[in-house]
Amino acid sequence: MPDLLRKGRLRSVRGDVVKFTSSIESDERLLKHVVDINKAHIVMLIEQGIIDPAAGTQIFDVLKDLDGRLTLKPSHEDVHMAVEEEVIKATGPEVGGNLHIAKSRNDQVSTAIRIALREELIQLMKLTVDLHSTILSSSKEHTETLIPGYTHLQPAQPITFAHYLISFYDALSRDLDRVLEAYGRVDQCPMGAGALATTSFPINRERVAELLGFGSVLENSLDAVASRDFILETLASLSIMAVNVSRFVEDLTIWCTSEFRLIELPDEFSSTSSIMPQKKNPEVLEVIRARMGCIIGDLISSLTMMKGLPSSYNLDLQEVTPKLWDALEVMEGSLKMLSKLIPSLDVKGNVFTRRDLTFTTSTELANMLVRKYQIPFRTAHNIVGAVIKILIENNQRLLDTTPEMLQEAAKILGLTLRVDMEDIRSAVDPANFVESHSARGGPSIKEVSRMIDARETTSSRLQSQISEKQNRLLDANRKLGQIIGSYLESEKSP
Amino acid sequence: MPDLLRKGRLRSVRGDVVKFTSSIESDERLLKHVVDINKAHIVMLIEQGIIDPAAGTQIFDVLKDLDGRLTLKPSHEDVHMAVEEEVIKATGPEVGGNLHIAKSRNDQVSTAIRIALREELIQLMKLTVDLHSTILSSSKEHTETLIPGYTHLQPAQPITFAHYLISFYDALSRDLDRVLEAYGRVDQCPMGAGALATTSFPINRERVAELLGFGSVLENSLDAVASRDFILETLASLSIMAVNVSRFVEDLTIWCTSEFRLIELPDEFSSTSSIMPQKKNPEVLEVIRARMGCIIGDLISSLTMMKGLPSSYNLDLQEVTPKLWDALEVMEGSLKMLSKLIPSLDVKGNVFTRRDLTFTTSTELANMLVRKYQIPFRTAHNIVGAVIKILIENNQRLLDTTPEMLQEAAKILGLTLRVDMEDIRSAVDPANFVESHSARGGPSIKEVSRMIDARETTSSRLQSQISEKQNRLLDANRKLGQIIGSYLESEKSP
Amino acid sequence: MPDLLRKGRLRSVRGDVVKFTSSIESDERLLKHVVDINKAHIVMLIEQGIIDPAAGTQIFDVLKDLDGRLTLKPSHEDVHMAVEEEVIKATGPEVGGNLHIAKSRNDQVSTAIRIALREELIQLMKLTVDLHSTILSSSKEHTETLIPGYTHLQPAQPITFAHYLISFYDALSRDLDRVLEAYGRVDQCPMGAGALATTSFPINRERVAELLGFGSVLENSLDAVASRDFILETLASLSIMAVNVSRFVEDLTIWCTSEFRLIELPDEFSSTSSIMPQKKNPEVLEVIRARMGCIIGDLISSLTMMKGLPSSYNLDLQEVTPKLWDALEVMEGSLKMLSKLIPSLDVKGNVFTRRDLTFTTSTELANMLVRKYQIPFRTAHNIVGAVIKILIENNQRLLDTTPEMLQEAAKILGLTLRVDMEDIRSAVDPANFVESHSARGGPSIKEVSRMIDARETTSSRLQSQISEKQNRLLDANRKLGQIIGSYLESEKSP
Amino acid sequence: MPDLLRKGRLRSVRGDVVKFTSSIESDERLLKHVVDINKAHIVMLIEQGIIDPAAGTQIFDVLKDLDGRLTLKPSHEDVHMAVEEEVIKATGPEVGGNLHIAKSRNDQVSTAIRIALREELIQLMKLTVDLHSTILSSSKEHTETLIPGYTHLQPAQPITFAHYLISFYDALSRDLDRVLEAYGRVDQCPMGAGALATTSFPINRERVAELLGFGSVLENSLDAVASRDFILETLASLSIMAVNVSRFVEDLTIWCTSEFRLIELPDEFSSTSSIMPQKKNPEVLEVIRARMGCIIGDLISSLTMMKGLPSSYNLDLQEVTPKLWDALEVMEGSLKMLSKLIPSLDVKGNVFTRRDLTFTTSTELANMLVRKYQIPFRTAHNIVGAVIKILIENNQRLLDTTPEMLQEAAKILGLTLRVDMEDIRSAVDPANFVESHSARGGPSIKEVSRMIDARETTSSRLQSQISEKQNRLLDANRKLGQIIGSYLESEKSP
Repeated sequence: MPDLLRKGRLRSVRGDVVKFTSSIESDERLLKHVVDINKAHIVMLIEQGIIDPAAGTQIFDVLKDLDGRLTLKPSHEDVHMAVEEEVIKATGPEVGGNLHIAKSRNDQVSTAIRIALREELIQLMKLTVDLHSTILSSSKEHTETLIPGYTHLQPAQPITFAHYLISFYDALSRDLDRVLEAYGRVDQCPMGAGALATTSFPINRERVAELLGFGSVLENSLDAVASRDFILETLASLSIMAVNVSRFVEDLTIWCTSEFRLIELPDEFSSTSSIMPQKKNPEVLEVIRARMGCIIGDLISSLTMMKGLPSSYNLDLQEVTPKLWDALEVMEGSLKMLSKLIPSLDVKGNVFTRRDLTFTTSTELANMLVRKYQIPFRTAHNIVGAVIKILIENNQRLLDTTPEMLQEAAKILGLTLRVDMEDIRSAVDPANFVESHSARGGPSIKEVSRMIDARETTSSRLQSQISEKQNRLLDANRKLGQIIGSYLESEKSP
Repeated sequence: MPDLLRKGRLRSVRGDVVKFTSSIESDERLLKHVVDINKAHIVMLIEQGIIDPAAGTQIFDVLKDLDGRLTLKPSHEDVHMAVEEEVIKATGPEVGGNLHIAKSRNDQVSTAIRIALREELIQLMKLTVDLHSTILSSSKEHTETLIPGYTHLQPAQPITFAHYLISFYDALSRDLDRVLEAYGRVDQCPMGAGALATTSFPINRERVAELLGFGSVLENSLDAVASRDFILETLASLSIMAVNVSRFVEDLTIWCTSEFRLIELPDEFSSTSSIMPQKKNPEVLEVIRARMGCIIGDLISSLTMMKGLPSSYNLDLQEVTPKLWDALEVMEGSLKMLSKLIPSLDVKGNVFTRRDLTFTTSTELANMLVRKYQIPFRTAHNIVGAVIKILIENNQRLLDTTPEMLQEAAKILGLTLRVDMEDIRSAVDPANFVESHSARGGPSIKEVSRMIDARETTSSRLQSQISEKQNRLLDANRKLGQIIGSYLESEKSP
Repeated sequence: MPDLLRKGRLRSVRGDVVKFTSSIESDERLLKHVVDINKAHIVMLIEQGIIDPAAGTQIFDVLKDLDGRLTLKPSHEDVHMAVEEEVIKATGPEVGGNLHIAKSRNDQVSTAIRIALREELIQLMKLTVDLHSTILSSSKEHTETLIPGYTHLQPAQPITFAHYLISFYDALSRDLDRVLEAYGRVDQCPMGAGALATTSFPINRERVAELLGFGSVLENSLDAVASRDFILETLASLSIMAVNVSRFVEDLTIWCTSEFRLIELPDEFSSTSSIMPQKKNPEVLEVIRARMGCIIGDLISSLTMMKGLPSSYNLDLQEVTPKLWDALEVMEGSLKMLSKLIPSLDVKGNVFTRRDLTFTTSTELANMLVRKYQIPFRTAHNIVGAVIKILIENNQRLLDTTPEMLQEAAKILGLTLRVDMEDIRSAVDPANFVESHSARGGPSIKEVSRMIDARETTSSRLQSQISEKQNRLLDANRKLGQIIGSYLESEKSP
Repeated sequence: MPDLLRKGRLRSVRGDVVKFTSSIESDERLLKHVVDINKAHIVMLIEQGIIDPAAGTQIFDVLKDLDGRLTLKPSHEDVHMAVEEEVIKATGPEVGGNLHIAKSRNDQVSTAIRIALREELIQLMKLTVDLHSTILSSSKEHTETLIPGYTHLQPAQPITFAHYLISFYDALSRDLDRVLEAYGRVDQCPMGAGALATTSFPINRERVAELLGFGSVLENSLDAVASRDFILETLASLSIMAVNVSRFVEDLTIWCTSEFRLIELPDEFSSTSSIMPQKKNPEVLEVIRARMGCIIGDLISSLTMMKGLPSSYNLDLQEVTPKLWDALEVMEGSLKMLSKLIPSLDVKGNVFTRRDLTFTTSTELANMLVRKYQIPFRTAHNIVGAVIKILIENNQRLLDTTPEMLQEAAKILGLTLRVDMEDIRSAVDPANFVESHSARGGPSIKEVSRMIDARETTSSRLQSQISEKQNRLLDANRKLGQIIGSYLESEKSP
């Protein structure tokens, strides 16, 4: 429909230029929303007395199920002109020629993206809550599954797999919070901003916003057409989530190596090699890990494109939108896959018999010296460190520590120390370690169970919140349909 | 103080390695906070009966004003060991050796960064609110200053400079909202998380959080030491703000060209050339524009560093923090400069006499045909477009449009159209244009004045909110000082 | 064909997992190359006596035109297994089961990407040389078209449009050089590296490289399968080119504003607004400018994905490749569009009558004072600066400078200065300015013509170099076809 | 020295604005080069008869050792004005006022950055060659040190540590090649380009280039002041190198875990925990890994800053330069540290007794079936895969494979297979595996030794090439000193 616009100032046009600048491919997903916007706009124009109901109803008759019928073609400049062309074709220029009164592609496209994004964000939040549920279910099964916690990729202290899973839950919670907050800024309606200065027609911006289910009007008309920080914010939230997901997946990738062997991936989530029959490769994990990098790339593309622009509407903005959809698709696919994968993880127990892992309780050995033998902490740390040095040189485990070894180490620091063997035994036991770490947020079974319960409550609250948002949209859309239905009805029955 | 740690398992150490991995340079700004954390931690240890008040008070005596006395040196591994070393030196291993009971550098560093960041975010929010005030003041002076609004960098429609400034205000408002929301996630206390698994000592995490003025405890202990999404979120918020600032500055850069001449920079904000005496370069604007790109680079550095990591604490996290401070410094400096610059801008009036700018009211000419002559909008758009083509070819202005020209153009489309000259004159007047665009968010004087008023209310509400946050921190710090003061007091007067 | 691999260690497989990890969509463009690699590999296996010619010929019979017949489906794990499956289906496991002797997907995929990339780079270089030719042609027409050169977006000194175009030519030249150098590192053959350790079969890596037209063997087998710096380098070269292209396009975008009016875009490259009939938007330029940002995003995606990996082959590498193709496609499309656009640019002449632009010769006024009146340069600069201040305040042009004004300004600095009016007139003339700036690389007609000539020679040398590379590939492919043809022939005629 | 420039058009100036836009901090490293440029420029002006020798010699007398005397202060706008101010102060406006004839800060700053960068690139290349030497020395010691090669972080096939090190050598070689090629594009002299249009004085650009040791003149004057792709290219090359370094360091980080235990870091390169006395953290590796991400951030900052600019000189370019220095510093520090670290690595032998690692020779078991028992490769792969499945389930090693197990697995596929036990034993031996993988680029001792020898030759050739470049610069600087010396001499002895 460049034709529609080319009757005026500019006449000629090159097919290759239209194709080059066309957004039609990525507009596909906006079609339904553009049709809805036109519906809501016309309802408002009628209500405000700007066009007459009869003409409006003729337009409704075309718009009714246009998104099902209309096929976007590369020769269309964009979805907006395609819809207008269709309406004019069906109703003639006298009627359809007024479809574009008091609006512009600038406000319309931003509105359509926001509508589409609202749906995507709801979908994303639902998938995150699903993953949350999966994590909590798995956590319940693993409150007693001891694993070593690592720092610097070196065994640090015993925790449980449930404790670990909840740390991922909590990171995702903040991701979810950020998305929820972004949602509020997406859910603002630019319609009525026109090209950038609203219009001289007596429009009602609040009414269009309401008909399209928006929470509010995006007020300043220049800001309304120019701003895309809602896209940048979504991409930034996704990128931070991507880092959290990537770190989790990196853990699993390392833990399912034959060296770490904390976890076994089920066969059905693994692949083998075309020439090494022994291989069991965690390809699902690698693909997720890599794709998280693509999301960051989408953010940077968008930041870089926007950074160089003056304010107001520039066509560059058109090229930002596909990055948004790409990032959402990648994240949604990965969240779905994780929800399937996590329940299938085979977490190995009994790993603390491995020599190196026995040392993970050494802080507790030092703590015990502080508590029971009044050794200052830093001194106790040094004594235990000295003992460990010897144990490692002798290829022994932490539980091979003897009272004599401690005494020997203490002597060097000028101290006398006689430790009961039972105290050593108790201190170095990983299960005891976990049990005694019952401070808030710690790995003890009781504390982790409490955390699981608390998160279940939060999760269902969030679930309702998200459903509510979704229902609000469905309601608005239903109402819009009814309004249009009654116009069409009243027309039929004169 | 590697010495403190090297008495145990690892003995030797290379100076160059310590220097290479040391964070001491960037730790400078954490020193005060690390001292405060140690104070709060010892208060809690005493209250929980983990160490005795006398020993604790000895430690308080060292910590009291340690940040004023202690100079960090490159041979220090980090600020945490420097402080502990100092305490042990002053109180002996018997007392000072217990400073590190029930905590770790992992929870301590994350807590210190969060305390420092809270202060920076408050500073950032204040500077944003200052800029907001500046914008509103300037807006009040420019509600009648007509300027062309641009899209695609082509003159689009008349607006006012106040209308424009408010669009920047609104973008910054969303930036501020994002920072405020981020603040809530920064304001969570990791202390007590220990290395990653809390501790077996009967600590009270809520109490430490309270003493340090935190809003809440960052619960899961693994998450507490591993997570840096609060840094990524801050950097992401700054990056989006950077895009908004850069676009504003890009506008000014273009508008103060001798070709656009919408704005004149005062001499004192300009520079000249070393060889071209006529030059008046907007260097301040260019530097701000460029530095906004550095903030994006800081975000990417951080995302890239974090993306490749497994979860939990890795020393890589240490390298992320300086990027945070850099981005904050850059943004704060630029916001300050903008607050000085905006009131000095000399906005040129009367630009609508320039031939090209007269065409910015052509939408209104079309709208008038719709309203008064019942021409469908799309047809009116085409008629006006055809007239403009002729006017441009004849080097005429839009106000040279005659009823005959419109009639001629309409005829081609098969229409009869007799327009009153007065209607044309009224439609093409830029002041009329602006006045008639009084829909919500539009540029009319009345609507813009209303928007200014509304924003003044919001701004002072925000100002209180920020002050409240700041007072909360000051209060907590004062209380901590008092508690320590009374310990020191009671010791002196037995 | 997971089936082929699933008969061994891993049995079950989930369809959704295969689909999730599958690279089949992006493998489409590798199909032809994978078939060619298999052909070359089998030729080598026969020649080395590893498989017998009869079996090899059976395989050739299937491979012959397999890429025309084979359709990749989502259920295929990847293109490599799809081809092997096809061969085994046609020749049975006895024969086809040996297709994968002495190779692996790891070396094969890297080889296939390199073959595809060689072709793309040749295409890219050709398009760059095409653009180069376009630039030179336009330059020839514009050696006398005076335009202001800008610094800081402020008018600086007169140059010509040809001089400007050549600066873009030269930037593109360096881009082309980088691509050429990257080509050498792409043109290395990994085949024979196997999974990562070559093979125990007596293969001939040089022979396979030769059959596939490679310049050399990529030697160390671990490096051969692990390295993707050839992709990063290509993306980096494209990103730098993207910056150069974006800056050029940004110039045009600004210059075709109604304020700058240095350039007019032809209608057929412009678009109008859906509601502002006067608009003529440079959408082609905006789209190119935006897409250059996507290329940078592709680079970052790839750097971020790779940065976090250990060495050797990880499936993450699979996700890097599509970013490469995307960036190449974007750049190629944009170069093509620029080659069409540049000859259509309507460069306005006579702009130096605009008041502000008259000042662009002020350096020359100062230079004249140095040369003819022995004023030191810095003093001359200050005198002229002072005069300009007055001229601007009085709304005058540089050519309104009088000897008296100069004298007045000199007096303040304590100097006597009597300038001949003719000297002023001559110094401030833009055409004189350009003519006198005939130092190497300067804008004078003569120097620019010399530069054009020199670049035409370079361009045709480059053109031959690129054609040579392309012919080398075609020759190798032809020869491979002939060898296989003669095997098939000899089989038929016993 | 804003004063020097403020006598003309612009009079007032704000201290805070000068400080905000000043580049003086980062100019420190350019001072010596700016002084040299001024020397070379004056030599040329004298030789071309533009200024007289006596005046020139007075200037030389000030410039002689100015970089040792001059201290840059925040009140200086930049290094260029600081130098000119100094010269004018010492020689008076009559003489010193001519220092800036026929040049501009625009060409001067680009020249100075290029001179500084040449030195940095030579330093970088030297450090890379040093690391290369270290790698080759270590390789020689480890040609027989068997380690498992990994793909997907799963054990793949046996290689040697020397074979692995050479893969890193080769990646670094390509990095070095890229830097060398970039050097050629850095080594071009912009002097004489002036503000953007050369000058009307009869300068000799080739002479200045020669005096400053440049390989060539950067011709087009607009390109000469506008282009910074030489910075982007350097940053891109560093970023790719950063990925290669990060992957190597990531390998070591994983290999020195207590689970992988392929490598032990010496104590002096490790750190321990403040509370976990058993910890031995690879902090050096983590810091290098993280900093490689900062280099990528520097690239993105620069790409983002440049991407949004029009062509020609904009002050934004000033903010790009510090990113260059930062990235170089980070890389140089990390390369130095790696050169110290690699010789200290304690590579563990005898790891192939670990059950999981025994399976790394399974490809060879399949290959043996192909070679000796005429089983097609894909079938052999499946048979071995099936046997491995059983072995793993029974907790056995690959060398527990019996002829019967193979026979059993073959039977399922309908084949008869009787394998000699000796064939199995020989096939599964890791040392045999490595020895038999003697194809070009493979891990066999002989082939690796050959590769080491070849690289030693290349390395010393490169070393000479780099020294040659460095000597060329030193020579030019010496000659410049002599020329100035003889001017000063001739002045003294009339």
